[in-house]
Amino acid sequence: MPNPRTSHATRTVAVVGATGLVGETVLRVLEERAFPVGELRALGSVRSSGARVRFGGRQHDVREASLEALAGAELVFFAATGELSRTLAPAAVEAGAIVIDKSSTWRMDARVPLVVPEINARALAGHGGIVACPNCTTIGLVMVLEPLRRAAGLAHVAVTTLQAASGAGREGLEELAGTPRGIFPRQLAGNVLPQCDRFLDDQTTEEHKLRDEARKILALPGLAMTMTCVRVPVAIGHSAAVLVETERALAPGEALAALGTFPGLEVHPGNDYPTPLEVAGRDEVFVGRVRRDPTHPRRLWLWCVLDNLRKGAATNAVQIAEALLERT
Amino acid sequence: MPNPRTSHATRTVAVVGATGLVGETVLRVLEERAFPVGELRALGSVRSSGARVRFGGRQHDVREASLEALAGAELVFFAATGELSRTLAPAAVEAGAIVIDKSSTWRMDARVPLVVPEINARALAGHGGIVACPNCTTIGLVMVLEPLRRAAGLAHVAVTTLQAASGAGREGLEELAGTPRGIFPRQLAGNVLPQCDRFLDDQTTEEHKLRDEARKILALPGLAMTMTCVRVPVAIGHSAAVLVETERALAPGEALAALGTFPGLEVHPGNDYPTPLEVAGRDEVFVGRVRRDPTHPRRLWLWCVLDNLRKGAATNAVQIAEALLERT
Repeated sequence: MPNPRTSHATRTVAVVGATGLVGETVLRVLEERAFPVGELRALGSVRSSGARVRFGGRQHDVREASLEALAGAELVFFAATGELSRTLAPAAVEAGAIVIDKSSTWRMDARVPLVVPEINARALAGHGGIVACPNCTTIGLVMVLEPLRRAAGLAHVAVTTLQAASGAGREGLEELAGTPRGIFPRQLAGNVLPQCDRFLDDQTTEEHKLRDEARKILALPGLAMTMTCVRVPVAIGHSAAVLVETERALAPGEALAALGTFPGLEVHPGNDYPTPLEVAGRDEVFVGRVRRDPTHPRRLWLWCVLDNLRKGAATNAVQIAEALLERT
Repeated sequence: MPNPRTSHATRTVAVVGATGLVGETVLRVLEERAFPVGELRALGSVRSSGARVRFGGRQHDVREASLEALAGAELVFFAATGELSRTLAPAAVEAGAIVIDKSSTWRMDARVPLVVPEINARALAGHGGIVACPNCTTIGLVMVLEPLRRAAGLAHVAVTTLQAASGAGREGLEELAGTPRGIFPRQLAGNVLPQCDRFLDDQTTEEHKLRDEARKILALPGLAMTMTCVRVPVAIGHSAAVLVETERALAPGEALAALGTFPGLEVHPGNDYPTPLEVAGRDEVFVGRVRRDPTHPRRLWLWCVLDNLRKGAATNAVQIAEALLERT
């Protein structure tokens, strides 16, 4: 495994899934944040090999992802299918790379840190080569839960999410725009669907991920969480109506203060609120309509929104890479 | 006040707001259900006078709503502005009509029954000429709460609604389609807005209505209810993710049985669910994804959807009229 010595050294960086929505956004975020990329390898499935992507002012050919194509890569972002992560990530680590994986493959593996840097960057200390990036909806939720946890503890969380089509990738966006792609279980355009991904039991995989991943990131394995995840006809931006019960009573003003001083959060005070259209392209998680639940002395309602492709995926992955560099 | 004697006698019926989305739907529902309309008066604001509406196989001129235009009407549906209801409804009653009002003007007046016929038709007994039809979102919610209340009592209700543009009338639909009408606080197309109507305090009027009206209809004035009402880019069909705590434990199968035998409800069993696109044009309230909340032994999640213009408005209003006829 490479052990970068100085923050000025450049790295050989590979992006697997470089033509996908998240992979493309990883390239943009690496540029914007001036991540020290020495050599870039743009990789993808057989289907995308031959395509070209833009990075650092020039075009890069996309090659098929393979161990050979990854040889010498020090840092590999996986933004492709879970199957590719499952087979290729351990081999890449074996060959000396650090992997930041956006698929769900490794997230719940006890040996793999699941990281939102603002919350648990210290979990990176124990990594064995793979670091997992959480589900896009999970990231938005834990970013608002963590400051409330620090301020007053968490007793119970009930959530209804309203998730954008791009959470299902480029084909999700195409299907929302009217091209059938077999992505959503019913028509999404002009509709809402209380089903994100498939059913595992009486909950969807998305609902399971939201609970299981949030518990792991917050290091609260027994946290009581219950949710309904809904797909809405929005291109970019996952929203959630969150009902949080804290352990100690927290006035809305105290909650706003805790949220407003947390890195990466932007607060809309009073009755103001963020919406998906307004936060698309932004890197923060946005929260508004923080108010008392009149039925319970320790419950607050919040409305939160994030760009699922940026802080929900690419930006968080690049922040993990930055945190890894800082540790060296 | 007229006192219709037989179910075969026809009535002189007026529809105030006949060119609006709800008023038009009232005309369609009166036709479909073969309501005994002798003479129809299509009325509206100054702006709509001169327009024509179709009813009973012919065109009717829309006249300006006034006490003169209402003279002799036995049954008057108000599907117009609250201001018109406030001024004209008491005068119409004074002149001998029964008013069924779809505006919010009279709903919380203690002298006025607020009726969903499947639930509280007997409240009609005390009417003084005006009967109020609840808010469209309220109707969907109470239709699923009432059978659960009968089966196991209600302890707490937490709701996130996803409401269609047509809940804000024809101009809401036009604005969703891209024509600015000043109806929604931000762009609705491709977006979701955690604000239906204006803010009264830290809750919107819509959220207040949902709680206050549900408590009145269910005759549970102290029922603990908490909610976030969200506008979504859907033309017709209000959805809600509902977390219900009953007083006695209720298994999902028992809840489905209670819901499935309640008149006007259609149940989607197991993981199946209704969506707005599929229920538009239907008169029932639809419920699916009835499942345990794993965090609480007496809580269930439900997903419910109704056509806000039909059962949420016109159909419920015509059902009230039918119930009034049956009582005579």
